Parts: sequence; C-alpha cells; structure tokens
Amino acid sequence: MKTLEGKRTLITGGLGFIGANLARRLVALGANVTLVDSLIPEYGGNLFNIAGLENNVRVNISDVRDVHSFRYLVQGQDYLFNLAGQTSHMDSMQDPFTDLDINSHAQLSILETCRKYNPGIKIVFAGTRQIYGKPDYLPVDEKHSLRPVDVNGVNKMSGENYHILYNNVYGIRACVLRLTNTYGPRMRVKDARQTFLGIWVKQLIEGKSFEVWEGEQRRDFTYVDDAVEAFLLAATQEISNGRIYNLGGCEVINLRELAALLVKVNGGGAFKTLEFPADRKRIDIGDYYADDRLIRSELKWIPKTNIQDGLQGTLDYYKPNLGRYL
Amino acid sequence: MKTLEGKRTLITGGLGFIGANLARRLVALGANVTLVDSLIPEYGGNLFNIAGLENNVRVNISDVRDVHSFRYLVQGQDYLFNLAGQTSHMDSMQDPFTDLDINSHAQLSILETCRKYNPGIKIVFAGTRQIYGKPDYLPVDEKHSLRPVDVNGVNKMSGENYHILYNNVYGIRACVLRLTNTYGPRMRVKDARQTFLGIWVKQLIEGKSFEVWEGEQRRDFTYVDDAVEAFLLAATQEISNGRIYNLGGCEVINLRELAALLVKVNGGGAFKTLEFPADRKRIDIGDYYADDRLIRSELKWIPKTNIQDGLQGTLDYYKPNLGRYL
Repeated sequence: MKTLEGKRTLITGGLGFIGANLARRLVALGANVTLVDSLIPEYGGNLFNIAGLENNVRVNISDVRDVHSFRYLVQGQDYLFNLAGQTSHMDSMQDPFTDLDINSHAQLSILETCRKYNPGIKIVFAGTRQIYGKPDYLPVDEKHSLRPVDVNGVNKMSGENYHILYNNVYGIRACVLRLTNTYGPRMRVKDARQTFLGIWVKQLIEGKSFEVWEGEQRRDFTYVDDAVEAFLLAATQEISNGRIYNLGGCEVINLRELAALLVKVNGGGAFKTLEFPADRKRIDIGDYYADDRLIRSELKWIPKTNIQDGLQGTLDYYKPNLGRYL
Repeated sequence: MKTLEGKRTLITGGLGFIGANLARRLVALGANVTLVDSLIPEYGGNLFNIAGLENNVRVNISDVRDVHSFRYLVQGQDYLFNLAGQTSHMDSMQDPFTDLDINSHAQLSILETCRKYNPGIKIVFAGTRQIYGKPDYLPVDEKHSLRPVDVNGVNKMSGENYHILYNNVYGIRACVLRLTNTYGPRMRVKDARQTFLGIWVKQLIEGKSFEVWEGEQRRDFTYVDDAVEAFLLAATQEISNGRIYNLGGCEVINLRELAALLVKVNGGGAFKTLEFPADRKRIDIGDYYADDRLIRSELKWIPKTNIQDGLQGTLDYYKPNLGRYL
C-alpha cells in the first residue's frame, strides 16, 4: 500500500461507524486526519467513537449540505473518504427529500467543490448494495441490474453515478465501494437505522430477547476492520479510479443462524423470529450476497475476520461501552 | 385503446415539443386537457405550440418545482403525462443543481403529491435513452447497463427510478418511456438544447450551411406523432404499470446520411462535417439505437412515420412558422 504517512485525509461522516474506525487506522498510519460530521442524532455520528483519539484528529462539526464549510475543509486534502449519508431505509420513505438532499444533492455539491477547489484529490465513496434491489442471481456482481427498492437506494445510486461521472469527465479521481452489511465496534446500536445487528447486540447485552424478521434470508457481512482496509486500498491504488467494487465477507449465513451464533458467542441470550411488518416487507430483497472478486483481484483486498470472531469483537466492545451508545 | 374521451389529463411540459403535440391529440380524442409549463426561455415551452387550441385546453404557467401549484393542479386528474424536464446535456454540466432540482427533486415531489392527493392517477414519465451511456451492444434493450455520461443522465435516471418505486411500493400506477431522438413539428429549433435536428432545420431553412459533428454515429429517430401514440398506449393499458419501455423508430441511419436526406427532402441546402468540440466529445456515446420489441409486443406500438416522411412533415411545418421559434 502506498504510504499514507503525512497525507492529508478528510473523512465525511468521520464520527460515524466506519468513519471513526477508518480515522483510527489512518492515525496509526501517521496520516493527518480531519473528520467532518453533522452529529445529527438519528445518524451514526458519536463523539465517543473517537475516544482517546481527540488529540490526534481535527474534528469539524458540519453538515455535507453546508457548501461553504466543505469548500474550506477540502482545500489541500490528498484524500477524501466520503462516508456521510442518510442510511435508514425507512427514514428515506418517510422523509424522502432529506434523503435526496444528503445522498444526492450534497454529493453533487461535494464533487463540484472538489472540481473547483481541489481537483487533484482522490475520493473513495461509500456506496451500498441496496441499489441492486432484489437479486436476479447470486452472488451479485457489479454488472447486476440496479433496481433500488426505496428512496434511499435511488439517491445513493445518484451519489455513485456523480462520483464516476466526475472521474470520467473531469478527471477527479474517484471510486465507489458498494458496502454490504458492515458491522463491528462503533456501529449505531440504539435502533436499527444503520444495521439490524446493532439493535440485536444492544438487546442481547441488555438481557432482552431480540427480534429476527423471517430468518431465512441469506446475507454476507463485512467486519468493519476489513471494510476500513478496503477504503485504504481503494484510496491508494490508481487502478481504482472510475471503478465500482462490491465488498463481501468471509462467509454467507442466514439471519436465524446469525442470531444463534451471536447468542452462542455471547454465552447466552434469546431471540424470537417474527413475520415481517408490512412496511418492511414491501422493500425486503430476500437473499443477497456479493460477488466481490473484482476488488479481491484488482486491489488485493481479502476480508480477514470471520463472522464468529467479528461478533466476538463486537460484543467485547459493547459490553463495557454500551452506555455510550444509548 | 381505452377511450380518453372526457378523461381529465394533465401534461407537465405541456407547451413543449412533445407535450403540445400530445395535447393536440388528446383534444382531438375528446379529453379534458390541462397544460403545465414554466416557459423557461431555454427550455421547450412555446405558446405558439398550441396555436388554434387555446379554447380547448387550460394553460397553467408554473414550474414543476412549485409544489403548491402542482398540488392544486393534480387533484381530480385521471392521467398525468409527465414530460417537464431540463433536457440540455451541456446545461446540465454547467449548472448541475438546476438539472437536479428539475429532473430529480421535482419528480420526487410530483410523486409525493400524487401519493397524498391523487393516488389513483396513472402517470407516464418521459425518460431518455441517454442514461444508457455508451452502449455495450446494439440494439440496446431495457436490460442494458445504465451508465449516464452527464449530470442530466444521472438525474433523469433518478426521475425514472422514483416513478417505478412509487408504482411498486405505493401502487401509484406509473411507467416510463425511454425516448430516443424525437423530432417533428414544435421541437425547439433556435439552438441544439433539445435536439441537434432542431438547429439543422433552422439553419437549412435560413439558407445557411448546418454543421454535422463526425457523422458516422448511427441513431434511431422517433417522429413525434409516433411518440405521442406511445404515450397514449402506455397511459391506457394496465400492463404498462411499473414498466420501462424503449422507444425506437422505423429505421437506423447515420448522421451524415440523415443530413443528406434532410437536404434532399428540402430540395437543396448544404452542411459541413466537423470534428467534435472537446466538451461534447467527452460525453459522446457513439452509435445508439434501441431494441424496442417490448413496447411493440406489450403495448402494440408501431412507429408509422419513416424518416423521409418525418423530415418532410418537419420542414413543411417550419417553413411557414420558423419565425415563431426564433
């Protein structure tokens, strides 16, 4: 990996789940790190995510919709890890315009600002596998049709497309990682807005029975350290420019098996399986798992943490720290 | 075709090229017709497009970004022909946010308004083949990958996706027609913002030599009467709900041949072929023509006007009327 030592890096959504884990890694690598985060309560930002790191990063509380703030912050940066986003599928249906403003409009604005004030920057954008919709075939590769099943998917798709467009038309180097279920320390656990695994972990630690919807859906999971590695590999290799990569994980598992494994790793606990609520059922996609051979071959990315170890790492983190996430 | 007699129809972009031709046809069929148009000078709206029809349609000058106006207008309508849009590819690069507001944000707003105030309406949305980008194969069917090459393409793609999403999730019946090069009477001819054929026709009639860029690109063309027929067929058949259809034409022709045919039909004139300007070259897509078998089989659409007849009809219209389009 090209060295990141001394490089100037900007992370939008930098106090969030993946952003804060990425920040830790970048600091360890000797990078100069600036975090931008809106701290909107319903989103992933949490100052505790950078506990112990306060003197090693610069924190700027602002929203990616704030054009002037971003214009100032982006100047002189070598890398932009563009992770800020509205991630809740249900919220995107209930408040579609806010989702559009953040996931689509603000992304275009970020790219226009880079074009004008820092065209030499390299951008890695956090996309989502949600835009594939209900898969036609499995595993899903990057050529799969895109048929988003919620407003969030439509807007995230625009966000992706703008990045690739600005790479191709203006030479602003950019690439996209389509994330699947990412999990681990520092994820939002107070509700299911970021990932259903968050609320499972919270309720398990609280000694409550957690709820599994259906249970037969097969999914893949990326441990956050592996996701962070993918962001670094994508940032530092020129071959990624203009590319879109799926991220997958070490294994595929259905949700009932995942729940059972979580209980086992925890050394106890309970869950119940339920039918989908009607409003979720409408936008459920059934089985999904990624074909991630492209990033493995081009960027030499290999996920290293299997699900059992990942769940262990997650529980080890939240048991002493749960109170900081409620 | 299910009768449209007495039906209440609303056309956004109703003073524009396709919208006004559609309005004429709907009036002839006995429909109740309301036209919404912003009359933004750079777009396609032109009051002359409804000359002679003034007493048979209701005209409301407002912008689709005007939520309150649309909320009032949409109530009680049976059909919405949703044609308003920013169509210039170059303008979308120079002013990407206006393109986003009209082609993406306003579309979401229109759908939210229908959901709240007229969920029984049927919508036909005017999409564009531009979202396919540079084709991987020809002819291009609806399953072809979407790789928009300009901001307009990204935003039009969102517009499409919102319509399909609201059909699937909320049961607001909607379908999309992906238009290719549409031409004929009432198109914008004062510049190339809507179609390059417009400026060709204008310059030819003015006795000037018109410019053909490259000339080898093969394309298909839909005469506006055929496009109008597709909108009516899509509106009045339930099988179209949730569907996306390509429109093609009677034949495929390269631009140099098209220019020569236009000169021949005109009985004289001249053109010169030029290299692409750099800013167009970046977003050119080479050859494109549609596989439109889906709409032909499902909706029984058959384009009836070949290019020679279509160019004749176009010139016959503009020769006496050119002054109303400058």
